[in-house]
Amino acid sequence: MAAVGVILGSDSDLSKVKECFEILEYCNVSFEIIISSAHRTPEQTRQWAASAADRGIKVIIAVAGGAAHLPGVVAAHTTLPVIGVPVETSIAGGLDSILSIIQMPAGIPVAAMAAGKAGGANAALFAVSILSLGDKSCAERLAQYRKEMAEKISGRNEALNKMGYRDYIKRDRG
Amino acid sequence: MAAVGVILGSDSDLSKVKECFEILEYCNVSFEIIISSAHRTPEQTRQWAASAADRGIKVIIAVAGGAAHLPGVVAAHTTLPVIGVPVETSIAGGLDSILSIIQMPAGIPVAAMAAGKAGGANAALFAVSILSLGDKSCAERLAQYRKEMAEKISGRNEALNKMGYRDYIKRDRG
Amino acid sequence: MAAVGVILGSDSDLSKVKECFEILEYCNVSFEIIISSAHRTPEQTRQWAASAADRGIKVIIAVAGGAAHLPGVVAAHTTLPVIGVPVETSIAGGLDSILSIIQMPAGIPVAAMAAGKAGGANAALFAVSILSLGDKSCAERLAQYRKEMAEKISGRNEALNKMGYRDYIKRDRG
Amino acid sequence: MAAVGVILGSDSDLSKVKECFEILEYCNVSFEIIISSAHRTPEQTRQWAASAADRGIKVIIAVAGGAAHLPGVVAAHTTLPVIGVPVETSIAGGLDSILSIIQMPAGIPVAAMAAGKAGGANAALFAVSILSLGDKSCAERLAQYRKEMAEKISGRNEALNKMGYRDYIKRDRG
Amino acid sequence: MAAVGVILGSDSDLSKVKECFEILEYCNVSFEIIISSAHRTPEQTRQWAASAADRGIKVIIAVAGGAAHLPGVVAAHTTLPVIGVPVETSIAGGLDSILSIIQMPAGIPVAAMAAGKAGGANAALFAVSILSLGDKSCAERLAQYRKEMAEKISGRNEALNKMGYRDYIKRDRG
Amino acid sequence: MAAVGVILGSDSDLSKVKECFEILEYCNVSFEIIISSAHRTPEQTRQWAASAADRGIKVIIAVAGGAAHLPGVVAAHTTLPVIGVPVETSIAGGLDSILSIIQMPAGIPVAAMAAGKAGGANAALFAVSILSLGDKSCAERLAQYRKEMAEKISGRNEALNKMGYRDYIKRDRG
Amino acid sequence: MAAVGVILGSDSDLSKVKECFEILEYCNVSFEIIISSAHRTPEQTRQWAASAADRGIKVIIAVAGGAAHLPGVVAAHTTLPVIGVPVETSIAGGLDSILSIIQMPAGIPVAAMAAGKAGGANAALFAVSILSLGDKSCAERLAQYRKEMAEKISGRNEALNKMGYRDYIKRDRG
Amino acid sequence: MAAVGVILGSDSDLSKVKECFEILEYCNVSFEIIISSAHRTPEQTRQWAASAADRGIKVIIAVAGGAAHLPGVVAAHTTLPVIGVPVETSIAGGLDSILSIIQMPAGIPVAAMAAGKAGGANAALFAVSILSLGDKSCAERLAQYRKEMAEKISGRNEALNKMGYRDYIKRDRG
Repeated sequence: MAAVGVILGSDSDLSKVKECFEILEYCNVSFEIIISSAHRTPEQTRQWAASAADRGIKVIIAVAGGAAHLPGVVAAHTTLPVIGVPVETSIAGGLDSILSIIQMPAGIPVAAMAAGKAGGANAALFAVSILSLGDKSCAERLAQYRKEMAEKISGRNEALNKMGYRDYIKRDRG
Repeated sequence: MAAVGVILGSDSDLSKVKECFEILEYCNVSFEIIISSAHRTPEQTRQWAASAADRGIKVIIAVAGGAAHLPGVVAAHTTLPVIGVPVETSIAGGLDSILSIIQMPAGIPVAAMAAGKAGGANAALFAVSILSLGDKSCAERLAQYRKEMAEKISGRNEALNKMGYRDYIKRDRG
Repeated sequence: MAAVGVILGSDSDLSKVKECFEILEYCNVSFEIIISSAHRTPEQTRQWAASAADRGIKVIIAVAGGAAHLPGVVAAHTTLPVIGVPVETSIAGGLDSILSIIQMPAGIPVAAMAAGKAGGANAALFAVSILSLGDKSCAERLAQYRKEMAEKISGRNEALNKMGYRDYIKRDRG
Repeated sequence: MAAVGVILGSDSDLSKVKECFEILEYCNVSFEIIISSAHRTPEQTRQWAASAADRGIKVIIAVAGGAAHLPGVVAAHTTLPVIGVPVETSIAGGLDSILSIIQMPAGIPVAAMAAGKAGGANAALFAVSILSLGDKSCAERLAQYRKEMAEKISGRNEALNKMGYRDYIKRDRG
Repeated sequence: MAAVGVILGSDSDLSKVKECFEILEYCNVSFEIIISSAHRTPEQTRQWAASAADRGIKVIIAVAGGAAHLPGVVAAHTTLPVIGVPVETSIAGGLDSILSIIQMPAGIPVAAMAAGKAGGANAALFAVSILSLGDKSCAERLAQYRKEMAEKISGRNEALNKMGYRDYIKRDRG
Repeated sequence: MAAVGVILGSDSDLSKVKECFEILEYCNVSFEIIISSAHRTPEQTRQWAASAADRGIKVIIAVAGGAAHLPGVVAAHTTLPVIGVPVETSIAGGLDSILSIIQMPAGIPVAAMAAGKAGGANAALFAVSILSLGDKSCAERLAQYRKEMAEKISGRNEALNKMGYRDYIKRDRG
Repeated sequence: MAAVGVILGSDSDLSKVKECFEILEYCNVSFEIIISSAHRTPEQTRQWAASAADRGIKVIIAVAGGAAHLPGVVAAHTTLPVIGVPVETSIAGGLDSILSIIQMPAGIPVAAMAAGKAGGANAALFAVSILSLGDKSCAERLAQYRKEMAEKISGRNEALNKMGYRDYIKRDRG
Repeated sequence: MAAVGVILGSDSDLSKVKECFEILEYCNVSFEIIISSAHRTPEQTRQWAASAADRGIKVIIAVAGGAAHLPGVVAAHTTLPVIGVPVETSIAGGLDSILSIIQMPAGIPVAAMAAGKAGGANAALFAVSILSLGDKSCAERLAQYRKEMAEKISGRNEALNKMGYRDYIKRDRG
């Protein structure tokens, strides 16, 4: 039984939110993945969303680009928390997807994340922060994740101080 | 039996596309109106769209603001031509609605019109241009509409020539 | 003990998210409100965010306009789920606030809602959807809210069918 | 005698809407193609548009980038349904073309599609949905197209379930 | 015989470019005005543009909002210099008109001015700067216009110095 | 002898940056004001900027809307720190002014502030933060300003806690 | 003695407007080129602009990217017609340059062209259209240019008709 | 003891503002560099900012992309002048970062620079212009920098005049 359901409008979005899956795994959160379009497979999308709670899903992550109706359509068929991840497009780098996901009308919320890679990672982390309210081991993994992030930055500052900016930049590119 | 089905995401959109209804009436095109949200009443929207062809509907006009998923969601449930009308919003005057309607993914088209009043009028005229392909009396009303538009502009030029721009502007404001 | 903490960057934002408070009350969710700026009172903001979990807060709603750093700054000091509500501004109707809230870097998520009134309402509903995972009575109120929304639309369609669009629009304006 | 007329502002747009031609062929819809600019060859454009109905054309598809006046100019010279396809440009990925095509004034509608490849495909599908109103075999091909789209997604889900996301992404890139 | 031809897409634009006419009069430049739409009266627009040079017109000013194809369509039918004035719209304050006028394809130039009142005034001044190349009295009026502009600013600085900013602002509003 | 020079492109901008003058006065910083346009009075602008350092000016604040070239033109004629304040316009609420001020080429910096009222206030505060580096009494006033800002927010929280959000909003509007 | 003066903010812009020079040469219009920045070499820019009319220059073309103040600054120092060419930048493909050039305040006009290559070509053609008012041989070259443009399109249509779209696209890429 | 403190939200920003460091070195200004995120290491950021003045820092440069809260967060913890450098992102080339840095609320100013390379260089030059108010040798280096910039342009004009535009462009690319 999966705690998080991830739905993607296209299989080409899978690689764009790879960090999402990796972070869920890091936090030991079970998840299921489905490719289903709001427009091309509306019935599949509706049934998947409407039955998610009964399957034990607690949080849904919906990934879509362009008109990006998927997160809103999913949210219309469930009262579970739905997190929307816009995919970068050619219109101003994803402004179309961002606005389509964030501008949901009063009544049916979607939690919008950043466009692209950061959005995929943060969707997972936000799902984990919700699950952490009722799951201590989940909360510990999340705390651990933050700690490691901070430690990485410490390590970078040490290297930068030792090497100076010139060598650091060179190494970065080497 | 109505030839055109008009679906609006909110009853507050009715007054914004009044010209749509008036032009359909001018062209003697029968139509039905329903208020139904893609998100707040997804089942009603789905059933209305999926059964439209069987009810004799030939063209659908879908009006929505903000995330404006309605035209796309309707198009997912029918192969009838769907015309989308964005409603002006506070985000750059409706840029969110425009992009959400126009940026449909390959496979499920929506015909996007201008935001606001012009879009409502043009949705009706575009529906009429489709119906005109199979209905001569409809085509005659459309031709008549264009002729009257051109005549109104002739009348304005005559008035402008007679009065000069100063008096014309004053009259316009009076 | 409050379940939801609402933090606003300015007291002038209170009236803009009134629906947020009303929906939380409708769902019998206890909440606390604080006015605190990310920039003008950074210490108060930090302490409020860092101690929120210990006070029993489960979900945070952060409301801000312009540069709108508040939701991100709050999220930096807690692992609780943080929902961000952009306030409409003069820059393209709030595009600055929207982008500043949604474009959080990988690692520290904020759940971005729509700009303005819809965002305030949806922040409350999204918080309730999270609380519903662990609180049955909360979930029932949320289901009830959705049901009432759909019923209101039914009522509007009945009125529209009875009156016709012309009288409905007039009544709407009367 | 062609049922659909496709007009492109530049021969460099041909490859950008290749899917348009392929879908028309898939649906057994005859079409003619002309390269003609609204600005560089205005007379040719006008005559082509004004005579389209007499040549038996039922639907027009006009493709243009930048200022993208072509669909509007064509629509001014015919009452046939005109579908406009914006071409991606460097200004925010085609925002200039999108706005120029969608923001037609009341009276002369153009049906705007998405920018780029998706727009080309959808223009063809939208034209087919119009022709389907009076042509049963056309309607059958359209239904078949949708069915195949859905089946492709089913196949992808099966592969994804079998392989897991890691291998699926690798294969995708391999 | 008029030296400047002003064409407006709608009579509602007349008052928006009043300064255009006033400056032409100030510089003793004769002009004609016509209301003609690129889309609603394409034949009238074409004939007016194509015959402008023969009527003695030297510079054309074309005013339009929304899709704003008028300046480009006029430029397609003449080699006279065409100045385009975008009218402020609800889309980001006229961004649609601006982009549609400025983004002309290589081969057919239009000289784009600012949106709104400033654009109307500057279209006249730019036309006068062109006419000044071959007309000394015209050049003198233009030089005089610039001198008076600078003198007005001097007067304001004197008043500001005398009154202080507080009283100056009050007076400004009184 | 003034420490800060404020230059405005138009006298209509005076009221828009009133807070700028009030904060300079609060901090006991002497200032001079001039109305001078980059385009309409280029010589005056150039001489004012080029001679500012010799007059004892230490920081320049330049206020302008639309194309907003003034801050950049001033910066070209002095090595003093130049702060630019965009004025809100109809293009997306001042996006044109913001981009024109912030996008200075490498070599000649301008410090861009927010559009409108906040920008006027912050230009003064930023000027004061620069002067504070060499002037202790100036630094004390700046510290005092920040303290009072924080105290105002404390007062608001007390009132909010006493009254509840409903009465607070009512009072706010009363 | 040159008839057209071309000023560029940076030598890296030279290759971006190569078509500008080629078209001027095609039309036998003499021109001079200078690299001069509004901000880095303000004195050189001012003197070049202020003395242009005396050197016999009739039309000025100013090319600039980013804040793109150059055309406006040049126009402030001359009453000759000034044509502005925005250079494509990373901000939405040149939106910053476009707005900075087009949004000139009332009083000092600049004729804005499209961003990038098309803008360079059109600046030359617009300059030629101005010069054509007083120079018959210039007008003949402009008419010839338009004729050749149209002929090229005819040739492309012939090839397309002969080859079909599939082979035409292949050849295009081959 | 460093006079300028540079804080970057990510080590990947180091190479993007290399010019910043090089110009500070050219002007003999001592500086320290730290990598610290507003969100991932909020405590480190706060302490670094709050203690900067005591460490002798006079001006702070903060570099960040995406939501780009770093400059504002730093400014909240110090009264030193804070210069913000947006990093280019995929959203319209950095519009998100630009707006998030420039739209600071009244009370806590940040001096926003251009996005990307130019912004890094100008942040250094602006810091130097502040330090120059109290440090003559610093002022001399700044004056020298400007002089060399102008001389480089002179050299380019000489080359251009000698070679002609064709060869100059070729050399540029060679």
